[in-house]
Amino acid sequence: MLTVFSDEHFMRQALLEAQAAFDADEIPVGAVVVCRNRIIARGHNQTELLTDVTAHAEILAITAAANALGSKYLDDCTLFVTLEPCVMCAGALAWAQLGRLVMGTADEKRGFMRYGKELLHPKTKVEYGIMETECSGLLKEFFQNKREGL
Amino acid sequence: MLTVFSDEHFMRQALLEAQAAFDADEIPVGAVVVCRNRIIARGHNQTELLTDVTAHAEILAITAAANALGSKYLDDCTLFVTLEPCVMCAGALAWAQLGRLVMGTADEKRGFMRYGKELLHPKTKVEYGIMETECSGLLKEFFQNKREGL
Repeated sequence: MLTVFSDEHFMRQALLEAQAAFDADEIPVGAVVVCRNRIIARGHNQTELLTDVTAHAEILAITAAANALGSKYLDDCTLFVTLEPCVMCAGALAWAQLGRLVMGTADEKRGFMRYGKELLHPKTKVEYGIMETECSGLLKEFFQNKREGL
Repeated sequence: MLTVFSDEHFMRQALLEAQAAFDADEIPVGAVVVCRNRIIARGHNQTELLTDVTAHAEILAITAAANALGSKYLDDCTLFVTLEPCVMCAGALAWAQLGRLVMGTADEKRGFMRYGKELLHPKTKVEYGIMETECSGLLKEFFQNKREGL
């Protein structure tokens, strides 16, 4: 059941961010940060627009969330992200002491899980595969278009 | 011998950045990015000032370097940093395809080398222990002061 505060609801919001990246010809990854059932920050991949390898959806979202809260630490927050974070982003989430991480689809090549959950903060809870089909579908469409020169 | 373009010369510049962090009551880590013997970017830890866990010296320096070059990729650059980068920063350096990484002192607790060089880009050359005493000395002094409530 899709309730207002379900993981599916918030992942759908992260997917809207991923779609914004897609529309801007960026690899379509989106994220939202939720604190007490409220979205306090949003982000989507902007590495091309900003010419900055660090401008991943997660980095932009947690920086905005810290700004919104006035605190570096996000132990009371959940990050919803459409793709499994990379090592850089997992390291950032560890520093932020994130409360909970909810991921859409796995990233077998670049995802942090190659190194295991220890890359995150020990207290961070982890959830997988929320709206997996939609999250991976957008990425597949993006790379398919690239291969076809669209 | 200390030549103008020696590793010691550039690490001394990174140390000046670390000192700026120290003076601002931030954990004293500094970095410079050098491209063809020219410093194109500088950065020091500003996590407290910016209330942002991602505001490490390396992240600020490589973002500034990409901005200076107009390119996301730093394969022609050397990053000099006073402390071994953390996992987050190593991940960022991997995305940037950094040419060469020169580190001052090791970080046994938080440094990326717990996971090995594979966290970096395969082409990144790595150098250790440049001005190790000075780099670690500044950190030791900082934490000693904290313990003594200074």
